[in-house]
Amino acid sequence: MTHAEILIPNSLSQIPEVHDFLSRLFHDHDLIPLPFQSYLAPLIAKRRTPKIEKQYTEIGGGSPILRWTRTQGAAMCALLDELNPSSAPHKPYVMFRYAEPLTETCLEEMKRDGVERAIAFTQYPQYSCSTTGSSLNELMRVATLSTRAGKSTPKAAAEAKDEEKLIKGGLAWGGQGQVEWSVIDRWPTHAGFINAVAHNVKQGLEKFSEQERKDAVILFSAHSLPLSVVNRGDPYITEVAASVLAVMQKLGHTNPYRLTWQSQVGPSAWQGPQTSDAVKGLGKLGKKNILLVPIAFTSDHIETLFELDIEVKEEAHEVSTRVRASMGEREWARQDFGERACAEGIGANGLRPREFWTADSLHWERKLQSPRRSYRSTRRKPDRRCAAMRIRKLAFCYETAKLGVNLQRAESLNDSPIFIRALADIVSTHMTDYSEGKCGPTSIQMGLRCPGCTNPRCETSKSFFANGGKVDDHVAA
Amino acid sequence: MTHAEILIPNSLSQIPEVHDFLSRLFHDHDLIPLPFQSYLAPLIAKRRTPKIEKQYTEIGGGSPILRWTRTQGAAMCALLDELNPSSAPHKPYVMFRYAEPLTETCLEEMKRDGVERAIAFTQYPQYSCSTTGSSLNELMRVATLSTRAGKSTPKAAAEAKDEEKLIKGGLAWGGQGQVEWSVIDRWPTHAGFINAVAHNVKQGLEKFSEQERKDAVILFSAHSLPLSVVNRGDPYITEVAASVLAVMQKLGHTNPYRLTWQSQVGPSAWQGPQTSDAVKGLGKLGKKNILLVPIAFTSDHIETLFELDIEVKEEAHEVSTRVRASMGEREWARQDFGERACAEGIGANGLRPREFWTADSLHWERKLQSPRRSYRSTRRKPDRRCAAMRIRKLAFCYETAKLGVNLQRAESLNDSPIFIRALADIVSTHMTDYSEGKCGPTSIQMGLRCPGCTNPRCETSKSFFANGGKVDDHVAA
Repeated sequence: MTHAEILIPNSLSQIPEVHDFLSRLFHDHDLIPLPFQSYLAPLIAKRRTPKIEKQYTEIGGGSPILRWTRTQGAAMCALLDELNPSSAPHKPYVMFRYAEPLTETCLEEMKRDGVERAIAFTQYPQYSCSTTGSSLNELMRVATLSTRAGKSTPKAAAEAKDEEKLIKGGLAWGGQGQVEWSVIDRWPTHAGFINAVAHNVKQGLEKFSEQERKDAVILFSAHSLPLSVVNRGDPYITEVAASVLAVMQKLGHTNPYRLTWQSQVGPSAWQGPQTSDAVKGLGKLGKKNILLVPIAFTSDHIETLFELDIEVKEEAHEVSTRVRASMGEREWARQDFGERACAEGIGANGLRPREFWTADSLHWERKLQSPRRSYRSTRRKPDRRCAAMRIRKLAFCYETAKLGVNLQRAESLNDSPIFIRALADIVSTHMTDYSEGKCGPTSIQMGLRCPGCTNPRCETSKSFFANGGKVDDHVAA
Repeated sequence: MTHAEILIPNSLSQIPEVHDFLSRLFHDHDLIPLPFQSYLAPLIAKRRTPKIEKQYTEIGGGSPILRWTRTQGAAMCALLDELNPSSAPHKPYVMFRYAEPLTETCLEEMKRDGVERAIAFTQYPQYSCSTTGSSLNELMRVATLSTRAGKSTPKAAAEAKDEEKLIKGGLAWGGQGQVEWSVIDRWPTHAGFINAVAHNVKQGLEKFSEQERKDAVILFSAHSLPLSVVNRGDPYITEVAASVLAVMQKLGHTNPYRLTWQSQVGPSAWQGPQTSDAVKGLGKLGKKNILLVPIAFTSDHIETLFELDIEVKEEAHEVSTRVRASMGEREWARQDFGERACAEGIGANGLRPREFWTADSLHWERKLQSPRRSYRSTRRKPDRRCAAMRIRKLAFCYETAKLGVNLQRAESLNDSPIFIRALADIVSTHMTDYSEGKCGPTSIQMGLRCPGCTNPRCETSKSFFANGGKVDDHVAA
């Protein structure tokens, strides 16, 4: 019997998939609850596709996450065969939330292989309802398709039609006792994971000269969450913070550090401080040597490769070198970069200067830094918001360059042997504890919904997995 | 030579001190930067005094924090004399930020004792600029009074006059080389501290029956911070989260948990989720057994005794028992408590029902839950805000009672012997590391200002302590 390890990462791997990816993303009610979701989601996805396609082109034609996840999975299973020969052979399957291999593709492959025991092993070290939670809800949904009763509303009927197709394709499989499921839902302070990050931080610090290194600031950066999700009681912020302290403890607190948050989108308020604001702020305080450390991603993908490297690091360097060369040192030192960024940002958005955008946009820039106030205004004027975002980015590039900030980034874990040993250890410990009855199919913490949760699927999904991957009749009724 | 341990807690001990305490609190520009601070602070202090006096009366006539801090200090120093006989005798001094013994009182006592070596040991396990940071800035200010040059603005002149008085009283002492200072600025994951909290959590869980205990949720609660401070880069949120994970790890993750935040005031946005919202939310999800655990306070004071016990626990129980008894079971089950709370809340504020407050206040209640939107409206209508706060509190009491929530609280550390051993261990390790040159007068992390810091006193203070408690001429110039 094959012992399956289902790895749950989150991204896509090829440019032609961008549109489908975004469409699935914006259709995910667990992640982004939109009004009129079935109408709005395709519109937003269509509008965003060109921008995201461009980002993927810039990082080399696609995200390497599928490749990294497959590499990690294969290496981990090879180790597991050694560590736990009794449950060998172990085989890794990959299950993306919004791109191929989708949940149904993964289940299909498992069905073909005749899998009877599977571990859903999230590749997010820290649990959030919008990442691991959403993926587990989807896994439960697809695995239990046939057990769901017919729906009465038009939306439910449309959903039921889609599901009917999958069932006809033989996909109502995996959630009716065919597979014994257990879940590894989080591992924010696992010693091996922490060692692996600490190792890469140490190597990252080597990129600075000895003199610079003593003074360098370690800036941990994680994907942010909207405050609405944080206030619902999502455990992600707490767990990311715990990872950071554990890494610093492992490093012996050799350098000062901060935890900051990246990748905010839209006008609503997100958990801060923002990574780019922190870089600027540190530069202004005279802290020029900064090591960025991704702490919530375990392999390179769009957030590390595009946002941290290209947007924050390379673009800052490139744009400013170009501008500096064009104006000479004296003018460079005198230049007001807020104004300049405004002028360029307006040009890029095809807006006419006679609209007094300069003053107005600086105002917008300030509003964006204070999310609480910006909401009402930006919601009504999306064009202005885009302009302000672009201006903000340009201003960031100029300011960091002028401040002489020396940004470096610690490598993502990717094929780090310490990390792969950690993955194998996490699974091996789980298998032993599970077979000895020391832990159930899910962690105790996973059983607790967020205090502000209003998603009934979370309850069904939690009892489905707590029941070893069978529908709990008590709850279903 | 006496080896001094300066304990830095934060509160006051007697009711007659409430007004002075509030006045100092609202004058603290490090903590609450107000426009026209010297005019506004006395007004706000005066307005708030009766309310806070009432709270202190309810917890028995004053906060026990000075007593607890003195107990902890004496027991810790007795242990230290055994652990580190070479630096004995050790003597504890207490230094409050806004109440007696104030910084100047503490320094006066040290001067009388002829202290030459002192450790400023914060009693906040997690560092925030608004707690430990503000106290250290004040210590630096008072200890270096005579080294400050004359000021030109009227405000600075008034300050200089106050300072002149202190200097004449012989208080410009402690920061010109008379004392060798070092700082213990944070200890969020110190093993002894974590053990002590875990021990009290275990004892707290005993308050539930065996059946209830299995299902009980551990709700860690810490004083919240305004998002403006969080976004500046204050490390507090990160460190509190790390304490929580460490406690859970020590407990072996026997129960599910969440970290929530209490004591928000005013209309601006604070770090969430709010403790009281989480209690209600868990009740609605059917999680009735909840253990509140204070994680950022080490002894009982107004936040634990009043807010957690009286507001959250006792008041909820009492108010609802009274109402339930008055109406009988059937009506109780049918009652709309939002409406009822509105009606009562309006009465309490002397507002007339003909103003259609019922509907309006429910609306306010919702707005308060979404801090981003509430700002503009509540700022203009403080009376309505008070009404809404009162309504919210009443609604909380009724709702938790109706949900049948069984709230318990873990004891504060107070005179826990495990905790006092931990305090002694923290100081002893610091002394050894410091004398062996393994650490400087301050931690490396303390040297880093927040990325968004705009308070120049933070820079002076950080280099003052990094320099062993002498003004760094380079920075002063």
